[in-house]
Amino acid sequence: MRAGQIAEEFPVVGVETSALVAARLIAQGRQPGIVVTGADGSPKAVLPASQVVRIMVPDYVQADPALARVLGEVSAEKIAERLRRATVADLLPEPPMDLAVVKPDDSLIEAAAIMARLRSPLCAVVDGKRVVGVITAAHLLGLVCRDEPS
Amino acid sequence: MRAGQIAEEFPVVGVETSALVAARLIAQGRQPGIVVTGADGSPKAVLPASQVVRIMVPDYVQADPALARVLGEVSAEKIAERLRRATVADLLPEPPMDLAVVKPDDSLIEAAAIMARLRSPLCAVVDGKRVVGVITAAHLLGLVCRDEPS
Repeated sequence: MRAGQIAEEFPVVGVETSALVAARLIAQGRQPGIVVTGADGSPKAVLPASQVVRIMVPDYVQADPALARVLGEVSAEKIAERLRRATVADLLPEPPMDLAVVKPDDSLIEAAAIMARLRSPLCAVVDGKRVVGVITAAHLLGLVCRDEPS
Repeated sequence: MRAGQIAEEFPVVGVETSALVAARLIAQGRQPGIVVTGADGSPKAVLPASQVVRIMVPDYVQADPALARVLGEVSAEKIAERLRRATVADLLPEPPMDLAVVKPDDSLIEAAAIMARLRSPLCAVVDGKRVVGVITAAHLLGLVCRDEPS
């Protein structure tokens, strides 16, 4: 079985996409993250879900996490407003997370190897410059465990 | 809203749990990872899905990723057999991934802050030593984006 055969359709976003759109795509699919593409459609980065929630946290709490304990509630409206004002580019971690990429005819072992090495919860399946889909680590495990007795 | 109110039931595993059981739990829930507890039930680590797929990769390919290109298919049966022989302890990354933990009465901002800081796709909600549930970054984003116009 080859990577291209098991790649799943996956929403990809550009760096200029609204952070709210990216957040909603991650939430709806309960995804570990999302692939970010450049203007030419080629994959540029993985935006992990953990970096999108960063925008929920006021800057002064990011600087001093102890302040979170004394912080009152921040309303969902306020957080959504922060997401609406930000773009995907604002959320990308620095240094960037290495992008795990395989080709459609790569084996599932190659997909597993690159996800393990980069500690990435997903890899993009890329044909030339085009992202044809994504494989998550959980999906790969599902294929392996299928029909297997314990 | 407090962490304890939104914590979801989440399968937890011990370090002695079979890797196959852990893999199946991750695959079934399409989880980004799973919480590993010690003998007393207290949380010890996060086992990310990306580290479970590592066991799909033969040792000599882990040592030299270029070998994956020349490697033939490895059957699902063989990989499941590797998972069956291994335990969760065998899969935990070294150095270990920091465990994101919040208390049930912590705010959602605190949960977001710790996931962002540790780049963790989930955090455990812990009451004393007991894991009462888990919050994923995707879940948190779903709560924030709910009912929000784009």
